[in-house]
Amino acid sequence: MQAMTTDARTPAESALVAACHREPVSHVPVWFMRQAGRSLPEYRAVRAEVPMLVACRTPELVAEVTLQPVRRHGVDAAILFSDIVVPLAAVGLDLDIVAGVGPVVAKPVATMADVAEIPELAPGQAGFISEAIGLLLPELGSTQLIGFAGAPFTLASYLVEGGPSREHAKTKALMYGAPQVWHALCDRLAQITAEFLRTQAVAGVSAVQLFDSWAGALSEADYRRFVLPHSTAVLSALAAEFPAVPRIHFGVGTGELLVAMGEAGADVVGVDWRTPLDVASARLGQDYAVQGNLDPCVLFAPWPVIEAEVRRVLTEGSVAPGHVFNLGHGVLPQTEAEVLTRVVALVHEVGVPARS
Amino acid sequence: MQAMTTDARTPAESALVAACHREPVSHVPVWFMRQAGRSLPEYRAVRAEVPMLVACRTPELVAEVTLQPVRRHGVDAAILFSDIVVPLAAVGLDLDIVAGVGPVVAKPVATMADVAEIPELAPGQAGFISEAIGLLLPELGSTQLIGFAGAPFTLASYLVEGGPSREHAKTKALMYGAPQVWHALCDRLAQITAEFLRTQAVAGVSAVQLFDSWAGALSEADYRRFVLPHSTAVLSALAAEFPAVPRIHFGVGTGELLVAMGEAGADVVGVDWRTPLDVASARLGQDYAVQGNLDPCVLFAPWPVIEAEVRRVLTEGSVAPGHVFNLGHGVLPQTEAEVLTRVVALVHEVGVPARS
Repeated sequence: MQAMTTDARTPAESALVAACHREPVSHVPVWFMRQAGRSLPEYRAVRAEVPMLVACRTPELVAEVTLQPVRRHGVDAAILFSDIVVPLAAVGLDLDIVAGVGPVVAKPVATMADVAEIPELAPGQAGFISEAIGLLLPELGSTQLIGFAGAPFTLASYLVEGGPSREHAKTKALMYGAPQVWHALCDRLAQITAEFLRTQAVAGVSAVQLFDSWAGALSEADYRRFVLPHSTAVLSALAAEFPAVPRIHFGVGTGELLVAMGEAGADVVGVDWRTPLDVASARLGQDYAVQGNLDPCVLFAPWPVIEAEVRRVLTEGSVAPGHVFNLGHGVLPQTEAEVLTRVVALVHEVGVPARS
Repeated sequence: MQAMTTDARTPAESALVAACHREPVSHVPVWFMRQAGRSLPEYRAVRAEVPMLVACRTPELVAEVTLQPVRRHGVDAAILFSDIVVPLAAVGLDLDIVAGVGPVVAKPVATMADVAEIPELAPGQAGFISEAIGLLLPELGSTQLIGFAGAPFTLASYLVEGGPSREHAKTKALMYGAPQVWHALCDRLAQITAEFLRTQAVAGVSAVQLFDSWAGALSEADYRRFVLPHSTAVLSALAAEFPAVPRIHFGVGTGELLVAMGEAGADVVGVDWRTPLDVASARLGQDYAVQGNLDPCVLFAPWPVIEAEVRRVLTEGSVAPGHVFNLGHGVLPQTEAEVLTRVVALVHEVGVPARS
């Protein structure tokens, strides 16, 4: 795999890319899902008068917000500031991100005719993302940039439900009751997602994360039947064109799905706080790196509790063939920024824990 | 275990109690969590002008609503119509159940002084429940009655958050940051829950279900440290006084917690749709019966899909030493009542599936 570490976009010293590829690292790389966001006062200042979807489509703002946690915390990787519905907005779907609610879709999808109205994402149509990445790379230097997209299932859930959902009842009803509509919808979403990630890879991201945040709502049998083929289409398209760009595949509550999510074509499988990394790695075997597990709510604890938990995650992660330090889900808005900085310092101080 | 099946409250022909005790059954018993509720037009008629907490404390209404799904569906067991916050209201806490929101607590719990203000539940203080059960037993005949309480963790989450929560952030912050306050709170809640279940057992329920609906938000390590001792206190108190009354222990998203939830003193472990019953039973071993797994959203599918799923659950459940047919979580309000009736008929028609 020598070619991967000599690619221009992945400097030899990149702990992130090496860990994703299960190669030796000088230290466990660390970043946080939603590190660019409301936990940072400088983010809240930028966003004070700018709606979310506007911010996500303004290259200078994307670049600024993406850089903020790098400056402040010294994380090993930036993640492109975006939202999973950004490519859906880019193809022209009428939706908005409502504060305190989440994405809201004007016309929910229910029929084959509704699916037919969703355009493909054309190359260049998300040019604001290419432009933002172009601004970011010189600023980032040796800090890696992770690309970002929502997976077909999670996107489909928003489109079918019309917004966030606890039960995903309409989504599942569509799956079970009109599987041909479901698969047509996910085919289209896979095209959009793949093209959105392709745009980011062309522009120079060093790794990508596919967010299937709600996949954990499904049984493994349903996941394999209704979701896996579409997520595989996304990840395999990227792998074919950009073999050096590692693919992280993440969901919440996916303890029973980890193996299937790996099989979709991931290099790294994201794990929430319910499944320890050594347990996850035992399920996944030697072909996958792991990422995650620290409960975002642990960051509200006193420092000695946080420190013990960080060390636990590092020890359990050392059993896996590759380990990227992260939370089990996104940083919660009420998290104190200073705590994140301290966690990064601790992970860097520990370096590479001895194998337990 | 002969004494169990000759107890007056558990007729020898009770498939429910036999399945819970891993004894031979003539058919797989079936009931549904939240079978008494908004899926039934006759329930919506009763509740049209009666607030939830009033209904839960009016013996005639409790009895009527509890009986409705028995009349309509022919389930093997009724579950007492109640809400997990009913015993908290009974000790005098200021809370309400708000339609479309859930339980809302006037003064959330944060300190040891707040905990000290929560009174114990005295014997006889939930007399409305004894009275309701007294009305129900003659009406139910050979249909079993299942008692009902919320577990300390889930109750604590409502009290600490002040209402329903997605992340349980304040709850976890209290656990990690002030464990002595947390344990004092759960000690008190365990007393209230145990006394509430004791009241129901004295009055004649045939089995009980302890609902720890949100336990799946925790890692196994946190569950064992912060929750298991308190749920064990509840279940062991009941087991000591009423050994013939089986104990069902239920949560959602608890794939990693099943063994610990069994160890709390359960006869039956509830399983959501994410973990197939044969997988759950393999984790639990031969000392526990299992219940659940059918995804409540499957009930929105066309009948052939539902039928296949019901048969799958029956086949996978046949591997366990005892199987109670149920959904993986409560009946969703928009479920068609006729579908539930048809599922009961199918489960009864299949009888006891051959071991796979």
